[in-house]
Amino acid sequence: MSGRVGVRAEPVDGVERGVERGVERGVERGVSSDEELIDVAGAVVSFSSTENDDDEIIDGGVTNGPCVSGFGVGPPGLLEEAAAIPGVGTYADFNTIDWVREKSRDRERHRKITSRRRESVWSFVTSVFDAWSGWLVVTLVGISAGALAGLIDIVSDWLSDVKEGVCVGELWYNREQCCWDSNETTFEERDSCPKWRSWAQLLLGDDAAGAGAYTLDYTLYVSLAVLLAVAAVSLVRTFAPYACGSGIPEIKTILSGFIIRGYLGKWTLLVKVVTLVLAVSSGLSLGKEGPLVHVACCCGNIASHAFPKYRSNEAKRREVLSAASAAGVSVAFGAPIGGVLFSLEEVSYYFPLKTLWRSFFAALVAAFVLRAINPFGDSRLVLFYVEFHAPWSLPELAPFVALGAFGGVWGAAFIRANISWCRRRRRGPAGRLGRHPALEVLAVAAATAALAFPNPYTRRGTGQLIRELFRDCGPLEAAELCDYGAAAGGANGTGGGAERGAAGPGVYAALWKLGLALAFKVVITVFTFGMKVPSGLFIPSMAVGAIAGRIVGVGVEQLVLAQPQMFADWCRPGTTCVTPGLYAMVGAAACLGGVTRMTVSLVVIMFELTGGLEYIVPLMVAVMTSKWVGDAFGREGIYDAHIRLNGYPFLDAKEEFTHTTLATDVMRPLRTDPPLALLTQDGMTVDEVETLVRETTYNGFPVVACAESQRLVGLALRRDLLIAIENARKRDDGVVSHSPVYFGLHAPSLPPTRPPPLKLRSILDLSPFTVSDRSPMEIVVDVFRKLGIRQCLVTHNGRLLGIITKKDVLRHMAQMANQDPESILFN
Amino acid sequence: MSGRVGVRAEPVDGVERGVERGVERGVERGVSSDEELIDVAGAVVSFSSTENDDDEIIDGGVTNGPCVSGFGVGPPGLLEEAAAIPGVGTYADFNTIDWVREKSRDRERHRKITSRRRESVWSFVTSVFDAWSGWLVVTLVGISAGALAGLIDIVSDWLSDVKEGVCVGELWYNREQCCWDSNETTFEERDSCPKWRSWAQLLLGDDAAGAGAYTLDYTLYVSLAVLLAVAAVSLVRTFAPYACGSGIPEIKTILSGFIIRGYLGKWTLLVKVVTLVLAVSSGLSLGKEGPLVHVACCCGNIASHAFPKYRSNEAKRREVLSAASAAGVSVAFGAPIGGVLFSLEEVSYYFPLKTLWRSFFAALVAAFVLRAINPFGDSRLVLFYVEFHAPWSLPELAPFVALGAFGGVWGAAFIRANISWCRRRRRGPAGRLGRHPALEVLAVAAATAALAFPNPYTRRGTGQLIRELFRDCGPLEAAELCDYGAAAGGANGTGGGAERGAAGPGVYAALWKLGLALAFKVVITVFTFGMKVPSGLFIPSMAVGAIAGRIVGVGVEQLVLAQPQMFADWCRPGTTCVTPGLYAMVGAAACLGGVTRMTVSLVVIMFELTGGLEYIVPLMVAVMTSKWVGDAFGREGIYDAHIRLNGYPFLDAKEEFTHTTLATDVMRPLRTDPPLALLTQDGMTVDEVETLVRETTYNGFPVVACAESQRLVGLALRRDLLIAIENARKRDDGVVSHSPVYFGLHAPSLPPTRPPPLKLRSILDLSPFTVSDRSPMEIVVDVFRKLGIRQCLVTHNGRLLGIITKKDVLRHMAQMANQDPESILFN
Repeated sequence: MSGRVGVRAEPVDGVERGVERGVERGVERGVSSDEELIDVAGAVVSFSSTENDDDEIIDGGVTNGPCVSGFGVGPPGLLEEAAAIPGVGTYADFNTIDWVREKSRDRERHRKITSRRRESVWSFVTSVFDAWSGWLVVTLVGISAGALAGLIDIVSDWLSDVKEGVCVGELWYNREQCCWDSNETTFEERDSCPKWRSWAQLLLGDDAAGAGAYTLDYTLYVSLAVLLAVAAVSLVRTFAPYACGSGIPEIKTILSGFIIRGYLGKWTLLVKVVTLVLAVSSGLSLGKEGPLVHVACCCGNIASHAFPKYRSNEAKRREVLSAASAAGVSVAFGAPIGGVLFSLEEVSYYFPLKTLWRSFFAALVAAFVLRAINPFGDSRLVLFYVEFHAPWSLPELAPFVALGAFGGVWGAAFIRANISWCRRRRRGPAGRLGRHPALEVLAVAAATAALAFPNPYTRRGTGQLIRELFRDCGPLEAAELCDYGAAAGGANGTGGGAERGAAGPGVYAALWKLGLALAFKVVITVFTFGMKVPSGLFIPSMAVGAIAGRIVGVGVEQLVLAQPQMFADWCRPGTTCVTPGLYAMVGAAACLGGVTRMTVSLVVIMFELTGGLEYIVPLMVAVMTSKWVGDAFGREGIYDAHIRLNGYPFLDAKEEFTHTTLATDVMRPLRTDPPLALLTQDGMTVDEVETLVRETTYNGFPVVACAESQRLVGLALRRDLLIAIENARKRDDGVVSHSPVYFGLHAPSLPPTRPPPLKLRSILDLSPFTVSDRSPMEIVVDVFRKLGIRQCLVTHNGRLLGIITKKDVLRHMAQMANQDPESILFN
Repeated sequence: MSGRVGVRAEPVDGVERGVERGVERGVERGVSSDEELIDVAGAVVSFSSTENDDDEIIDGGVTNGPCVSGFGVGPPGLLEEAAAIPGVGTYADFNTIDWVREKSRDRERHRKITSRRRESVWSFVTSVFDAWSGWLVVTLVGISAGALAGLIDIVSDWLSDVKEGVCVGELWYNREQCCWDSNETTFEERDSCPKWRSWAQLLLGDDAAGAGAYTLDYTLYVSLAVLLAVAAVSLVRTFAPYACGSGIPEIKTILSGFIIRGYLGKWTLLVKVVTLVLAVSSGLSLGKEGPLVHVACCCGNIASHAFPKYRSNEAKRREVLSAASAAGVSVAFGAPIGGVLFSLEEVSYYFPLKTLWRSFFAALVAAFVLRAINPFGDSRLVLFYVEFHAPWSLPELAPFVALGAFGGVWGAAFIRANISWCRRRRRGPAGRLGRHPALEVLAVAAATAALAFPNPYTRRGTGQLIRELFRDCGPLEAAELCDYGAAAGGANGTGGGAERGAAGPGVYAALWKLGLALAFKVVITVFTFGMKVPSGLFIPSMAVGAIAGRIVGVGVEQLVLAQPQMFADWCRPGTTCVTPGLYAMVGAAACLGGVTRMTVSLVVIMFELTGGLEYIVPLMVAVMTSKWVGDAFGREGIYDAHIRLNGYPFLDAKEEFTHTTLATDVMRPLRTDPPLALLTQDGMTVDEVETLVRETTYNGFPVVACAESQRLVGLALRRDLLIAIENARKRDDGVVSHSPVYFGLHAPSLPPTRPPPLKLRSILDLSPFTVSDRSPMEIVVDVFRKLGIRQCLVTHNGRLLGIITKKDVLRHMAQMANQDPESILFN
C-alpha cells in the first residue's frame, strides 16, 4: 500500500494528527465523529488503489462497446435543472470550498429570483429584500461590531483598574472617570485623586503607606491578575476552544475558502467577548485589537444567517466576512479607511470591488456606533489621538530608519521565537505545558503581574502606556517623562509655550524604567501569544516600538540640545525641534510592521490617528525599512507563520511562485503510483461505484467517456456521489446494487429485466478546469489563486493524465521552499 | 465567402472603419501603414477559409501516417530554451496582450537574473538594480508628475488671469499673487487691488469705466479665450492627436491590456502639457484633473523605458502605469490615499498588492513634490482646503439625499447627452463639425467666453469658483455670498464669531447669478467634453454640484432661520446650524459621483480635502444616493460609455455576467461556418503554413497532433509564425518553401534529399487555456477577466472544437445586452 498517494490517513491516525499538530483548538468540539475526520484528512485526489478497481473500470468500458462520443451530445444551450438532491453541493468541515462553483450557484439563485420577480407581490418583495440584503447585513455587522467593541472597552478598562483599587462612591467608574469627576487633574500628580482608593487604602485606612500597604497592593494585584487570567482560560477550555488566540490566522484561512465549522459561531462570539475582557484586564501582555476582528467576523457570520443569499453560499458569506474584518479594525483603532485597507491587504482573499464599498460602509457604521458609545469619554474616534505641533526635519530620517530597522529585527526575532515556543509547547520537553494550558496561563499571568507591578509604566494597561508615550510634552505637563528644564537659548521662536530645555532627573528615571519595561515586554510577549486565551498582538508590538521610539526620541532631543552648533543648520538653538512622541509613534509603526508585515494599511491607520499628512513620510520610511529588514530574515509575517504552523491550506496571493516546474511534476499519480482511478460515463453499477468510493479516500473522481480513450467528461465529488446514492436508495424508486449508473445525457436503452438506472449527470461538474501537462506550475498556481478552484485535471493532447489539488500545489510549494510537505494538513 | 468568421476587414475597409468610428484620434500618427492595420482589424480566431486549406491539412496528416502521440513526448521537466527570435512575443498596435504570457516572461527573466547573480560583480549589480527598479521607477514617476502638475498649475493660473488683465510691474504674477504682494485684501473688495490692471485700465487709462471699457474688456476676454483654445486644438491636431480628451477611458483600456502605441509617448506628454495649459486658461468648461492622470501615465511610461524590467514587458509596465495614475489623482486633488483608491477602484485592471504599496509611494512622492513647488501659495497640499466649524445634524440628511439624487440624475443625463452628441459629431448632420475640430473648438470657446464674462461666477476659473462655494462664510467675509445680517436671537452660543442672521440682498443677487451659472455650465459642458482639446470632467461636474449644493444650502439655512420654532429641536434659535459650504461640497461629490460612478475613492478624496471624519457621512450618503439613482438610468459611467463609443476591447471587472449561455454558444466556428483551420504538429511545409496564414486573417492557429484526432498540442500566434518564418529565411540556413515545419519535440528522420526542417516548437504556446464546451459562459468570462488571457480553446471530451477570443466574449456580452456586437472594434 506504499504506492498510495494523497493523505491516506486512517481514522485514528487522522484524529491524532489533527489533535497533535493543528486542530487541537477545536477538534474536541468542532468535529463530531471520527468518520467526518476521515473525510477531512482524505485527499481530493483519486487514483485506483487496487487492481480490482482498474479491472472493474475496464470491464465497464468494454461491456458497453466502443465509446464514441463525438460532437453534439445534446442541443447546445440545454442545461439540465440540477435535481435538488439535499446536501449535494455542501462541504465537509476542514475542507476547502470551490469558489467557482459557489459563485455559479449564487448566480443561478439570483437568476431564479429575478425571473420570478414579476410573478407575485411576494416574489417582488423577496427580490427587493435580496437585492438590499448586502447593505442590510453590513449595517448589522457595523452596528454589532461597534456596540461590542464599546462594551469590551468599557468593561475591560474598569476591570483593569479594579486590580489596583476602586472608585469609592461610584464603583462602576474606572480610575480615569473617577478622577475626572472629582477635580481637574491636569496639573496634579496622577495619584492624588481623592475618590480613587487603592486596596491598601481601603483595607488599612486612608493613610496607609509604607512596605505593608505596598505588599498588600502587590499581592492583591498579582492575585487578581492570576484570577482573571485563569477564569479566561477555563472559560475558553470549557465552552469554546476556538475563542483563543487572535483569530486572524484562522480568519485569513477561512476567507481564502477553508471551512472551520463553529469558528465564527455565536458560542465562540459570546465566550470570546467575555474572555477577551478577562484576559485584557488580567494585565497579560496582549491586546484586544486582533480579537476584535474575530469578534466582528463572528457578528458577520451570525448576521449573514438572517439572509438566504449569504446563509446558503460560502463564497457570498466570505464577502460579508471581509467587510466585518474591516469593521473590526475600524473599531479597534477608530480608523475606518485603515480598516478597509487592512481587510484588503492583509485578510481578504477574494475582494471584489462591491465588497470594497460595503466594507467601507461597515467600517464607518461601526466607527460611528463606537463614537456614540464614547468609551474613552473624549468623543474621539481614535484609540490614540495625537496632535503634534513641531514639524519634523530631514536629518531626523536617520533615527527613523534606525527605528524601522529595529522594528524589522525585533519582528523577525519575535516571530522565530514565538513559533519555536509554540512548536515546543506541543511536543518536546515543554509539551507538558501544552497539555495543561490553565497551568501555563497561571504561570505566565503570575510572572507578568509580579514583574509589572513595581514599574509604573507596566503596571497600568498597555494602551494607556502607549497613549502616554505618543503624547508630546506640553509646557505645563507634570508627568515624569516631561520633567524638562527651561530652554537655554531663550530664543522663544515658533511655538506657543515655553521651549523645552535639558532633560531633568525625572526624564532619566523614566528612561530607566522604560528600558526595563522594554526588556520585560520583549520577553513576556513571546510566551503570551499563542496561549489558550484571546490574545492580540497589535498592542504589545506597538508598546515595544513606542518604548524604543521614545527612548531614541529623548536621546536625539538631548543630543541636539547638547550640541546646538552641530545641528544649527536645521534646528535654531533654543527652539524645540525634536518631538519624542513622534519617535514613539514611528517606533510603534515599525514594530507592528515588523511583526505583521502590513504596509499601506498600517501607514493609513497611523495616519488616521494623527489626522495629518505631515507625518506620513516618517511613518512610511520606518514601515518600509521594517518590512525590508524583516523580510531579509524571513518572509512570513506572524499570521502566515501561524497558518503554516497549523497546517492550514492557505495559498498566499502575495508570494510569487518562481520555480520552473511543470504541471506534470506536481500532478498525481506520480510515475511510481498505480494509474488514475476513474468512473466511466456509463456501464458501471451502483455497487461498483460504491466499491470504488469505499476503497479509496479521494474526494473526487473524474468521469471519462470510456476507459481506453480517457477522454474527460466531467468530475464527480465523493461527497456528492455518496449523498446521491444514499438518497436514491432512500427514495425507493427501484435503485438496487446492480442498477446501472449513468453520467451521460441519454441512458442507453436497456433490457426490461435490468433494474431502473440511476442518473447522476446532475451531480457532475461538466466543466472541470483542465491544464496541459506542459503548463508551467507558475501558471497553474495563478489559476488556483485567482479562480479559487479546488482541483484541476491534467491532460496531455486531450487525454486525461492526472489531477492536481490545492493540497498538491501547497505541498509542492513547501517542497520547493525546502519545508516539510507534510506540514499541509487539510484539503 | 459569407461563411467567414472573425473580423475579416479588408485593408481599406479596416482603415476607414478605424478612422470613422474609433481610432480617428490617432490613426494619422499612430499607425504607420495600411498593412499594420490589417493586422489590427484581423481577429485572433482562425478557421479554414477555403477548401484548399482543408485539403492541405488532411494531406499533411495522411502523408505522415497515424499520429500516435501518447505519453512521454519528452522527459518531464525539460523545458526548451526559447530560441531568441527577435520580435517573437511582441504585440501589434491595437491588440490585446496576453497577461499570462507576459507574466511568465517576466518570471523567466527574473530567474535568469537571479541565477546569474553570483557569477560576476556586474551581474550582482544588475540584479540589485533590477530588484530596486520598481521603487526607482515609481519615485521618478512621483517626482515628474508632481513637478509637471506644479508647472501646469502655475502657468495656467497666470494665463487664465491674463485674459482679464496684468499685474503691472510684476508681469509674471497672477492676480492673487499680485494682490497679495501689494496689501492685505481679506477685508477689501477683490477688485480694489492697485497693482492689478484690467486691459481697459491699461489701454484707456486708469480711470476708464463705463460701457466703453467694459466692451473692450469683454472683447479682449473673448478674443484671448478663442485664441488660446484654437492654439490648443491646432497643436493637438498637428503634433499629437492622442493628447486630446481626458485620457482616462484610454488609460483604463490600456491598463486592461490593450496596446495603443504612442498614446503614452513623450510627444503626447509634451503636447498634452502645453495644450492643457492653453485649454484650461481659455476658460472652456473643462478641468485639468483627468488629463493630469494622462500626464502622470505618460511620465510612467517614459520612466519605465529606463528599466529593462519594465521596458520589455507589457504586464510589468502596466503596474507602473497603475502607480502613475494614483500619482496623477494625488497631485490633481492633493489626496494621495484617494489617488491610490482611485487607481484601485476606477482605473486599474490588474492590481497586485505590490502595486498598492508602490502606488501609495508614488502618490505620496508626487504630493510632496507638488507641495514643495507650492503652486497655490498657501503651503496646502489639497486643491480645495476647507475647514468647517459647525457640525451637521441628522435632519440635514434629507437635503443631502436630495443633492445625491440630483447628482445621479444630472450625471445620467449628462452621459446620455454627451454620448449622443459625440455620435452625432462623427456622423449625421453635425458630422461636418467632426471634420473641422478647430472650427468646433472656436465656436464653443467663443460661446463659452461670451456667456461667461458677464457673470462674475463664471468669469473667473472654475477651480476658484468651487473654492469660494466650498468656503464657509466667516464673520468678517465681505463677499457677496456672505452678505448676511446679524442673528436675530442674539444667543451667541457656540461659535467664536457673530452668528449669521437672515440673508441680505447680496446673497439673493448671488443666488440668481449662481442659478444662471448652473444652467450655463450644465449645457456647455455637454458640448465641451469630447472636443479635440485636453479636457477633464472632474472640475466641471464638481462646479455643477457645488453651485446646486450652495443654492440648496442657503435655502435650507434661510428656512431654518425663518421658521426657528419648526426646527427648534435640532437648532437652537439664534445659532448657526447650517453650513452652506458643506452643501456645496456634498453637491460636488454627488455630481462627480453621478458622472464617474466612483464610490470609495471619491469619498476618500473628499475626506482628504476636509481632513475630518466628521463629514464623511453626508458625503457618503450623497455619493451612494447618486450612484443608485444614476445606475437606475444606465449603469455605465462616463468613462465606460466613452470606451464603448470608441469600440475598445475592455472587459469590465465590475459588471457581472448573468446569462446562462455556454461556451459552445460563443465559440467560433459557429454551426454554419466552415470547420476550424488548424496546423498539424508535423507534416506541413513552410509553403503550406504560409498559404494558410496568407489566406486567413486570424491571429492564432491551434496546432493539433493530427487532423483526424484533433488532439490539441498548442497554439501558434500569427505574428510569431510570420516573424519566425521570415527570420528563418533571412538566416539562410537552408529553409526553403518546401522545407517541412515541425512543432513537435523531435523531428522525424527524413530522407537526405529533403531540405532541412524548420523547427518552430519554441514559438508554440504549449499550455493554451482550454475549457469544455459545456462550461457556462459566466465561468469563461471570469477566466478571461481574472487571468487576462486573450483566447481560449474549446474542447469536447478532449477533442478540439473551437476557439473563443476576448473579442468573441465582448461581442457576446454586447449581444446579450441588446447592443450592437459590431461596436467592438479591436482585439
